[in-house]
Amino acid sequence: MTQTSIPGYTYGTPQVAPSPISDADFALLKQTVLLGDEDLRHLRAAGEVLGPQVEAILDVWYGFVGANAHLVHYFSGADGRPDAQYLGRVRQRFGQWIRDTCAAQYDRAWLDYQHEIGLRHTAAKKNHTDGVVSTASHIHLRYLIAFIVPITATIKPFLANGGHSAADVDAMHAAWFKAVTLQVTLWSEPYVAPSVF
Amino acid sequence: MTQTSIPGYTYGTPQVAPSPISDADFALLKQTVLLGDEDLRHLRAAGEVLGPQVEAILDVWYGFVGANAHLVHYFSGADGRPDAQYLGRVRQRFGQWIRDTCAAQYDRAWLDYQHEIGLRHTAAKKNHTDGVVSTASHIHLRYLIAFIVPITATIKPFLANGGHSAADVDAMHAAWFKAVTLQVTLWSEPYVAPSVF
Ligand code: HEM
Ligand code: HEM
Repeated sequence: MTQTSIPGYTYGTPQVAPSPISDADFALLKQTVLLGDEDLRHLRAAGEVLGPQVEAILDVWYGFVGANAHLVHYFSGADGRPDAQYLGRVRQRFGQWIRDTCAAQYDRAWLDYQHEIGLRHTAAKKNHTDGVVSTASHIHLRYLIAFIVPITATIKPFLANGGHSAADVDAMHAAWFKAVTLQVTLWSEPYVAPSVF
Repeated sequence: MTQTSIPGYTYGTPQVAPSPISDADFALLKQTVLLGDEDLRHLRAAGEVLGPQVEAILDVWYGFVGANAHLVHYFSGADGRPDAQYLGRVRQRFGQWIRDTCAAQYDRAWLDYQHEIGLRHTAAKKNHTDGVVSTASHIHLRYLIAFIVPITATIKPFLANGGHSAADVDAMHAAWFKAVTLQVTLWSEPYVAPSVF
């Protein structure tokens, strides 16, 4: 978390409800995605490389979403058409998320905000943060999981722009993949009954 | 699908219930994981490389599961300890799955079997195929999603064993990643209410 004035970005504030995941369960999840100390080092390096490229990365991701009617649908307003203000507000938080993903301490404040982001993809909280009236009440779980691919695949060229060796770029990319999958896993929690998560 | 005599492997048979996914929705999902014709070509090449290494790959995956109590738990018998026969029966189908993943035609028979595999990870069908009495009634969704990482990360060295160029190994690996994420996405369907999938 860094101090920001991004509208609706509530990381580290009391507005964020506690994550239901225990420390022990989270440790097992990290173990399952093979996330270790080496990966943290590579994530920090990735943060250095990606920081100055955040807007260019968002251009690629927003370009992909905008080119796919079934995806941009989730950013629709009351009339069912893309809501430019909604897209713009989420874009700012998405940029911050890139930085946060690379800087993650995996502490309780981080876990709580993962819980919040998960909720913001479900009917429980989608549209609330930006006060949007949208024809899309939630993001379907299928796309949340499927998005692991575009969010991981498209980052590689940006990681390669930092002058690191091919081996280091591969290591940063592998760490990014683990970090993204870990987060999507946490975000899936409010989609299901507690007993099956 | 290939003709096999693997116990409990019912791909392409009338015992498999139809997948609820429409062709149109499946096309959008493939588009979302960026899976194109080039990837199919690379998956076929991956199949050539991985085919003779299936047992060695399963050794790695089973080694990982066996080394983690929270994972091997799902293969427990009535006494809560790992059931060697259950592990062995699933292993055969898992080996066939590697071949099927590389040979996938993405037709209705394939989709129906994805639905079946998803169900076999939930309480609806887990333990039924092998007539097992287990203390684990279902695989928790968190690990199903998290497993995208080990199943993707550990395959790379095996892909590199086929004498292909580094660029081709990367392309096969990228295609494998898309194929695995696509399948886990489909398998998540029986975990959630139809409206949120
Ligand atoms: C790997 C998968 C995904 C990642 C990493 C991701 C990331 C994010 C982030 C960081 C935010 C802002 C969180 C905040 O408020 O601080 C967000 C919100 C949002 N995302 Fe995603 N997202 C993913 C999948 C998707 C998909 C598949 C869609 C559908 C197109 C989508 C649509 C949205 C929408 C509409 C919001 C705003 C929700 C609200 O009203 O607050 N996301 N996402
Ligand atoms: C990427 C994620 C995963 C993949 C690709 C995968 C693959 C498979 C395959 C191919 C089968 C056999 C399907 C058939 O019957 O033909 C299977 C069954 C099974 N898997 Fe998974 N699996 C994944 C995640 C997991 C996880 C996280 C666990 C927990 C350790 C797990 C435990 C099991 C068990 C216990 C069975 C037997 C289910 C039954 O009773 O029929 N799987 N899996």
